[in-house]
Amino acid sequence: MFISADIIDIASPLILLNTADASALGVSDGERIFITNPKTGKSATIPASVSQTFVKSGTVLLTSGIHPALGISPGDAVEIFPAKRPASLDFIRKKIDGGKLTRPETAAIVSDIANRVLSDAEVTSYITASYINGMDMDEVEYLTREMMASGDTITFSKKPVVDKHSIGGVPGNKITLLVVPIIASSGLLIPKTSSRAITGAGGTADLMEALAPVAFSASEVQQMTEKAGGVIVWGGATNIVPADDVMISCEYPLKINGRGKMLASIIAKKAAVGSDTCVIDIPVGPGTKIADETEGKVLAGQLVDLGKRLGIRVECAITYGGAPIGRNIGVNLEVSEALRILEKKDGFGSLVQKSCAVAGIALEMTGKAASGNGADAAMSLIRNGKALDKMREIIEIQGGDPNVKADDLTFGQFTYDVLSPAEGVVVSVANRALIDVARTAGSPAEHGAGLTLHKKPGETVKTGEPLLTIYAEKEWKLSEAIELCRTTHPVTVSGMLLSRIGAE
Amino acid sequence: MFISADIIDIASPLILLNTADASALGVSDGERIFITNPKTGKSATIPASVSQTFVKSGTVLLTSGIHPALGISPGDAVEIFPAKRPASLDFIRKKIDGGKLTRPETAAIVSDIANRVLSDAEVTSYITASYINGMDMDEVEYLTREMMASGDTITFSKKPVVDKHSIGGVPGNKITLLVVPIIASSGLLIPKTSSRAITGAGGTADLMEALAPVAFSASEVQQMTEKAGGVIVWGGATNIVPADDVMISCEYPLKINGRGKMLASIIAKKAAVGSDTCVIDIPVGPGTKIADETEGKVLAGQLVDLGKRLGIRVECAITYGGAPIGRNIGVNLEVSEALRILEKKDGFGSLVQKSCAVAGIALEMTGKAASGNGADAAMSLIRNGKALDKMREIIEIQGGDPNVKADDLTFGQFTYDVLSPAEGVVVSVANRALIDVARTAGSPAEHGAGLTLHKKPGETVKTGEPLLTIYAEKEWKLSEAIELCRTTHPVTVSGMLLSRIGAE
Repeated sequence: MFISADIIDIASPLILLNTADASALGVSDGERIFITNPKTGKSATIPASVSQTFVKSGTVLLTSGIHPALGISPGDAVEIFPAKRPASLDFIRKKIDGGKLTRPETAAIVSDIANRVLSDAEVTSYITASYINGMDMDEVEYLTREMMASGDTITFSKKPVVDKHSIGGVPGNKITLLVVPIIASSGLLIPKTSSRAITGAGGTADLMEALAPVAFSASEVQQMTEKAGGVIVWGGATNIVPADDVMISCEYPLKINGRGKMLASIIAKKAAVGSDTCVIDIPVGPGTKIADETEGKVLAGQLVDLGKRLGIRVECAITYGGAPIGRNIGVNLEVSEALRILEKKDGFGSLVQKSCAVAGIALEMTGKAASGNGADAAMSLIRNGKALDKMREIIEIQGGDPNVKADDLTFGQFTYDVLSPAEGVVVSVANRALIDVARTAGSPAEHGAGLTLHKKPGETVKTGEPLLTIYAEKEWKLSEAIELCRTTHPVTVSGMLLSRIGAE
Repeated sequence: MFISADIIDIASPLILLNTADASALGVSDGERIFITNPKTGKSATIPASVSQTFVKSGTVLLTSGIHPALGISPGDAVEIFPAKRPASLDFIRKKIDGGKLTRPETAAIVSDIANRVLSDAEVTSYITASYINGMDMDEVEYLTREMMASGDTITFSKKPVVDKHSIGGVPGNKITLLVVPIIASSGLLIPKTSSRAITGAGGTADLMEALAPVAFSASEVQQMTEKAGGVIVWGGATNIVPADDVMISCEYPLKINGRGKMLASIIAKKAAVGSDTCVIDIPVGPGTKIADETEGKVLAGQLVDLGKRLGIRVECAITYGGAPIGRNIGVNLEVSEALRILEKKDGFGSLVQKSCAVAGIALEMTGKAASGNGADAAMSLIRNGKALDKMREIIEIQGGDPNVKADDLTFGQFTYDVLSPAEGVVVSVANRALIDVARTAGSPAEHGAGLTLHKKPGETVKTGEPLLTIYAEKEWKLSEAIELCRTTHPVTVSGMLLSRIGAE
């Protein structure tokens, strides 16, 4: 059936048909239709929604979640048919029933995920089944290769190409803002794609966006990296491993993060940007994603194995994740903290130590530093100003202002100091509670929102001294963040009264 | 935030917000909002979709999948808040991780399914996890009770109240059209709710709709049953066990039919209509849902156990399901076949035998027939015309024409005889292939479409004699059904050439 296409601005990938047209096609609400745009030659299979009045007969409405894949302009005549049941559903069903998926079966599933042939419900069922029944390393390799093949890939003629990844879960982990300029200033390539915050207070892409645009295509990433040596861009804007974006959005509500899928997701992105050398930061400890060093080592072994299958040398750094990296949480707060180290050409504490340790491993792996000297070599690149120059070059090539200073980044005008109720030693900080306070204050959407942690575990504090300062751009968000602090106690001081039970 | 509500006619339960309003609320695309309508006092929690241009700021659009639950009229001022993460997600997560769900946890999940708080993806994840990890009988009982509690229930002052159920998978299984009038004509109550076809050629509700309206509320079902003794209505139109409708639509794409969920789904509906005596028909054999008698007996034991927990006496009839019941498949074809038995006050073959066997069990369980005499007593009610009179009474009370005759039901004008290519005995018929031919011919949407099977297993046939006749209302659907017959061979005659390989 030929029918006129129109577009509506709704993010969900939906296609809306009039009841009469749906009935003539023999398609019920929720059944898939195959749609082709003769003008662009593009086609897609998507579940249809049916409406009696909202869509007029002879017209099909495509939402912004799907029309770009078809290259549709309003008024285009498109052809629609009832689609066959996708074979990928049978393969998902096989996984539900405990079967092992072959590479062609995995290919069908991943392709149908990336092309939105499968509904969110079907993708979620696949994720749930893979999580419960597990995947062996062959299945993980197939998934990795097919996820990589689901989108654009980059090949560099110059080698080596370095990449880094942090498993996440630790607040304030802004080390990418230091690691990338260090690596690139050593003469290596590092085309870093990052994510935005999902449950955190700011992903690396959110942070970098305070300095420069972060949305680029894969070929732009390649060209910029070839010129500047490195970039820090938002992976979601490229068409690199698009299947992963769909899967991540389906994992989010139920917080499903199966090991096989996690491995594939990490390594597919490294392989897709043409990386051959990769350092992976695995923070362990209370409040992180990985409970302890033993579990961290298992994960590290799996990452090294999968990297080898894909032709990537992987080394993992197991790091302490029980407290924030540095002291600032929130977009501008974190960016200024990182920039200040580059500007001062010096620094101490967890942020600079960890950044140099991670960058140093890459320098050693690629022969840029002798074994055991990587961290020192990284620190030298901060000290001699090369990392700062490189960061300015990266900011400029991404379209930002290369002369930006740490002091240019402003913090929310509404602030509040959380004071210590007791004298003693900070015995612990609660990562999740700190993140929640920063998010409640407005981070990452409001760049000036967040918090500064004045006291970290092991540091002494007097009664009435500030433990942390909360920043917000909106007064009501500050109030909510203060209220949250009262109930969640993000910082624990020895001898502090945690709660009074039975008091009026 | 107070905002003006408007309605759009799209079946999916969606709520659409302008980007600016979503941002002011702090809600991202896909996150849940809590909406209350002060005019009706009703409220709901639903995932929001965000649009920059399609919805104007200050307006919230509700689709027809959700606005009735809020009793909204266009222009109503409603209040919206960001909703808290539903606790039911944590309980689904517990099931994913292999935990056993308590009754309160089950209650939270089922209530959030029925009220559309959970997205289809989240419901599908719950169904997938319950299928893979299984449920013990306590969990099944909790699910049954909570599914029952998710909607309207009926209580009859007069007892016993009979119900029947068929596990399904067998084409042409129109026995409800005979069982209900037989039971009701014996003086018992039978408030039968039925489903429409999902993958079949016609559910009982589709069949009954050829004779009378089938959409009624629970209280109408109660009143009609009290007056006429029985009804045959569409369960989907009542608000009886509404959570099941959502779950069934989520099970459909991946054909997930977990045992625990299947048991709960059956017994919850029987309990909700106030039934205390229930006969369940379990067809077994090739092409049915239950492979063999051994598996049928396990299922029967589980149904009896679950019934006991809910205070319902359940007896199961394990029946032969390897071939269609009767000879006709398709709405008008099946209805006329059943009506003709009542009109003739006689009949032989699988349809009348099975109907009397199932009705007979209920007559014995309730003391209306002596043990071992139930089927004969049922046949007597056909022979003495009481079943026909009762069927007319049921048709009339549901608003149909009580004087309808089997001959009034018309069949599609486009017909085709599939002839036997060989002489011999029919050795098998393929249930699924027969259903697919009837569906392709237009059943159940087109009431005149379907097929008549002239030869059933064990019957002899000559070369060129018709094996079946296909009926369609549209010529192109007849062509497609004929084509399908050529490739799927629904009827196998001994000695028939099944395919020629390598021939040009």
